[in-house]
Amino acid sequence: MKYQEILQEIHEEIKPFKGEGQIATYIPELATVDPDKYGICLHCFDGQEYTLGDYEEKFSIQSISKVLTLSLAVSKIGERIWERVDVEPSGDPFNSLVQLEYEQGIPRNPLINSGAIVVADILVSILDDPKEDFLKFIRSICGNESINFNPKVAASEKATGFRNAALANMLKSFDNIKNDVDTVLDFYFHQCSLEMTCQELSRTFLLFANHGTQYGGTEQILPRRLGKRINAIMQTCGFYDEAGEFSFRVGLPGKSGVGGGIAAIYPQQYSVAVWSPRLNPKGNSVLGMKSLELLTTKTGYSIF
Amino acid sequence: MKYQEILQEIHEEIKPFKGEGQIATYIPELATVDPDKYGICLHCFDGQEYTLGDYEEKFSIQSISKVLTLSLAVSKIGERIWERVDVEPSGDPFNSLVQLEYEQGIPRNPLINSGAIVVADILVSILDDPKEDFLKFIRSICGNESINFNPKVAASEKATGFRNAALANMLKSFDNIKNDVDTVLDFYFHQCSLEMTCQELSRTFLLFANHGTQYGGTEQILPRRLGKRINAIMQTCGFYDEAGEFSFRVGLPGKSGVGGGIAAIYPQQYSVAVWSPRLNPKGNSVLGMKSLELLTTKTGYSIF
Amino acid sequence: MKYQEILQEIHEEIKPFKGEGQIATYIPELATVDPDKYGICLHCFDGQEYTLGDYEEKFSIQSISKVLTLSLAVSKIGERIWERVDVEPSGDPFNSLVQLEYEQGIPRNPLINSGAIVVADILVSILDDPKEDFLKFIRSICGNESINFNPKVAASEKATGFRNAALANMLKSFDNIKNDVDTVLDFYFHQCSLEMTCQELSRTFLLFANHGTQYGGTEQILPRRLGKRINAIMQTCGFYDEAGEFSFRVGLPGKSGVGGGIAAIYPQQYSVAVWSPRLNPKGNSVLGMKSLELLTTKTGYSIF
Amino acid sequence: MKYQEILQEIHEEIKPFKGEGQIATYIPELATVDPDKYGICLHCFDGQEYTLGDYEEKFSIQSISKVLTLSLAVSKIGERIWERVDVEPSGDPFNSLVQLEYEQGIPRNPLINSGAIVVADILVSILDDPKEDFLKFIRSICGNESINFNPKVAASEKATGFRNAALANMLKSFDNIKNDVDTVLDFYFHQCSLEMTCQELSRTFLLFANHGTQYGGTEQILPRRLGKRINAIMQTCGFYDEAGEFSFRVGLPGKSGVGGGIAAIYPQQYSVAVWSPRLNPKGNSVLGMKSLELLTTKTGYSIF
Repeated sequence: MKYQEILQEIHEEIKPFKGEGQIATYIPELATVDPDKYGICLHCFDGQEYTLGDYEEKFSIQSISKVLTLSLAVSKIGERIWERVDVEPSGDPFNSLVQLEYEQGIPRNPLINSGAIVVADILVSILDDPKEDFLKFIRSICGNESINFNPKVAASEKATGFRNAALANMLKSFDNIKNDVDTVLDFYFHQCSLEMTCQELSRTFLLFANHGTQYGGTEQILPRRLGKRINAIMQTCGFYDEAGEFSFRVGLPGKSGVGGGIAAIYPQQYSVAVWSPRLNPKGNSVLGMKSLELLTTKTGYSIF
Repeated sequence: MKYQEILQEIHEEIKPFKGEGQIATYIPELATVDPDKYGICLHCFDGQEYTLGDYEEKFSIQSISKVLTLSLAVSKIGERIWERVDVEPSGDPFNSLVQLEYEQGIPRNPLINSGAIVVADILVSILDDPKEDFLKFIRSICGNESINFNPKVAASEKATGFRNAALANMLKSFDNIKNDVDTVLDFYFHQCSLEMTCQELSRTFLLFANHGTQYGGTEQILPRRLGKRINAIMQTCGFYDEAGEFSFRVGLPGKSGVGGGIAAIYPQQYSVAVWSPRLNPKGNSVLGMKSLELLTTKTGYSIF
Repeated sequence: MKYQEILQEIHEEIKPFKGEGQIATYIPELATVDPDKYGICLHCFDGQEYTLGDYEEKFSIQSISKVLTLSLAVSKIGERIWERVDVEPSGDPFNSLVQLEYEQGIPRNPLINSGAIVVADILVSILDDPKEDFLKFIRSICGNESINFNPKVAASEKATGFRNAALANMLKSFDNIKNDVDTVLDFYFHQCSLEMTCQELSRTFLLFANHGTQYGGTEQILPRRLGKRINAIMQTCGFYDEAGEFSFRVGLPGKSGVGGGIAAIYPQQYSVAVWSPRLNPKGNSVLGMKSLELLTTKTGYSIF
Repeated sequence: MKYQEILQEIHEEIKPFKGEGQIATYIPELATVDPDKYGICLHCFDGQEYTLGDYEEKFSIQSISKVLTLSLAVSKIGERIWERVDVEPSGDPFNSLVQLEYEQGIPRNPLINSGAIVVADILVSILDDPKEDFLKFIRSICGNESINFNPKVAASEKATGFRNAALANMLKSFDNIKNDVDTVLDFYFHQCSLEMTCQELSRTFLLFANHGTQYGGTEQILPRRLGKRINAIMQTCGFYDEAGEFSFRVGLPGKSGVGGGIAAIYPQQYSVAVWSPRLNPKGNSVLGMKSLELLTTKTGYSIF
């Protein structure tokens, strides 16, 4: 079956679930989004792009940015990064301080908040102009100069991000933050405020589907081994407290954000991004999860 | 390349790591095993069997049995099992009581000890003669009547299994054990004492490679959906505190045991079992991990 | 003012609180008690005994027995006991396993369940006939041969005591139980089932008011230093999760039990026991707490 | 025996322990203190003052200040304070975040760091000029205008106080900090930097020995009930992880600081302050603990 038809079918079949879930409201800026938006975009290794709905609308990618900062960090310092953050799934909520205390300041993985803050600290250390250089990195992968932070969302994150400030200070107390805490948090809150469309996000994730080499190009942005590593981390840690459920239902490496976005890949086959703001109780997009489950069912591609 | 050559190559390439790791000694019976044993067996969907080393020697499969009891339980009660045990990875050690206390007696997944004890309780409830019926189930899948418990190992587990007894009583205090605690533990200690060869284990795991249908037959032992579910659980939870590392290095759903065995599958391609008693600090076979990493590298099959 | 008048006044002043609180029902045998019973008995160092209400009625002393087993154990092995159990207050509920896991099997103090189980194990090790010898010890201090276990309560404790069985097995896994787990638990469940009247309990606690020397006699049952130690432990750890509150409101070393009893002492002045089965949400007798608070207010004796 | 002789005797008897313990070095400013300083001062209700050694030398009172901020706060808002901080001992280290996470942002008591930060927040809310007004309060109780913060110590605390910043942000995330986090921490770091002599500290603690009424005066600074409450909290929570040990060995309500100071009281009898910078592994002054233990032994005053 053709992908475009599949996207149409998915759009039909998710209709019964459209009112389910709640939009994230923990920061005021996120609460203003239309909860009924839905967009999806898939980039296939046959060179085609398939789209549907609000796929050209910008949304706050939030935690999906953690995969992007991780990529930039490993492209710079390689395997040394694992000295400061582990690669194992966490049984605790994504912003828990308990694990951090018992494991002496080493986050379980780079996709929980504490891990992402350590990655942010690494970027602050090695980049000349961290926020600008990070934007350049994303723009370059995606081939789109319009990608930017949303300063209002970043400010909103900062004004309410006390749990993240607690994590950052805790990490600093274990000497696993090397820079000024406020500087690191400023970077972190900005990365979370990054706005992208499904189209841009899917195009960006082609990098991971292609094991670290720019799709359609030849530049090896990540060593192949590290591209696979990031895929493995997304597979086991990408969905907060629902990693096992997602792994089963969808069976693709991916990452979700509380803005309602999910990006996922099938290595050497396709990348896909879907967006719908209503979240299930574990913080993942209801229609996004459903759409990707249907996608792997209908394409017959599943890693299990 | 042919699988047999690959197994030979692996055997060569793991030689530098042969003295690494320690044999499990927490029960006296396990400590008597020759630490330098090594066997591997692979069953391919082309119908061939590939073997090397001590692949016909029985060893204690220990925690690998958790996948088998889980399979029998879901074949009997289906999805209802998830009311009593979750499917998410655990960030805590495999026998931690902390998670159980904070999550009110619901184990994180069926492959940590607490989860496997709940599964054992379910089997004690629904089987007429639990130990005998479980043996029949394994013998039937494997097509081998010789498979049996090792009563000395079971007795040894019981004599030292206080942490497991603590877990079982804790579960009972939350009413997530329905039968007598000692009866459930007796079953659990017996399942851990199950002895199989690499050949038998690999043949048995063909069931999971084949999504729940007996390989070479037509009997649907597990509904396809549940076969995939078990694969997903193995992928995210099969290697204790090293699930993320294994997921990255090997990239196959699998399960290890402290007896030094590992069984893994590539859906619709092959099943494989490897055995080498020396364990790394996280309790997984050193040469087993290394062998499977080389296998997926050499075959080019990897889910990432 | 005379003590007898004070007891009368207390009895009047607690009337508004008579319906408050719930009787313990976690074991069937405790649930059969008349919730409106109330008795109090005070032994003064002037040689007098003051009583009121149901002070001659037997009740299940439950956790108050922990002070008695501790006394017998320290009378036998002295300060060595602190190698196996600490003397610090616990911020966790009285039957939590978390603390035990993080502190490697050393209970925080001998008045939480895990600590009392270690003390029970010590007694099982050193007494010829543990249950009988413990009874003899209590009967001797109290001067009353009628004191006994309630076998129905002990059986009821056993039939529901899975959390305690979990603690005992956990302790065993850390090698902080030396005997058979079931034997230790049998002793522990029996000690909890001990039945005494307020009169007997108050007379028994004269030992602690008198720093370890039998009141009216000369026998030094506990070295003075250890008598004081037990008082200090009661002060900081005697009231589960309400030690701070009791310490403030009453200001006496004491111990409560879920049977509704509380025993307390004022060193060199008096011992007192009060019984009323209705418990506050933290498991302490509502009228018992209130009575003792009024007692220290009216007598003007308070350690603060 | 006369108190002055007792202080002399104590001074003799602690000599064998003089080299024991380590000076606090977690902030550079504390590390510069002469570790062999020793001073003691006792104010008796007979109107006399007894002194020995370096009793007129200023030192950093650190956590002892928590009792003073608590006093000022309860003098202003009374019992309402317990809505925001509990009064129970904590089994966790004094700066643990775990308890805070599980108890939803309510600190166990006002003498652990998280509790003291909440008290600091309360003072920031109700005082016009928090730091200055707090100084006035202490100066007034102590009758000494020279008492002041040490700005270098406060700056040093701030430069290294990431664990406290983590606690403050965590409390803020649970809405148990009402003011700006940095403002609250600035106050907290200043209160910890307060410098007093043993003489000044002992004179200040007469307030607690006298149940909230200024000694030698008539002003009821704290309601009697709240004065007793603070004594009870010091008794059960004043010595970090060593509250039980101190309660037993010394048997007085008191509070220690990592600067090596300890202040304690015997209600209606005396207040005492001792200073010696070498700390035991739990953070309490070695010679300070020893001195107070000898004091209660020699005076025969003990609450147990």
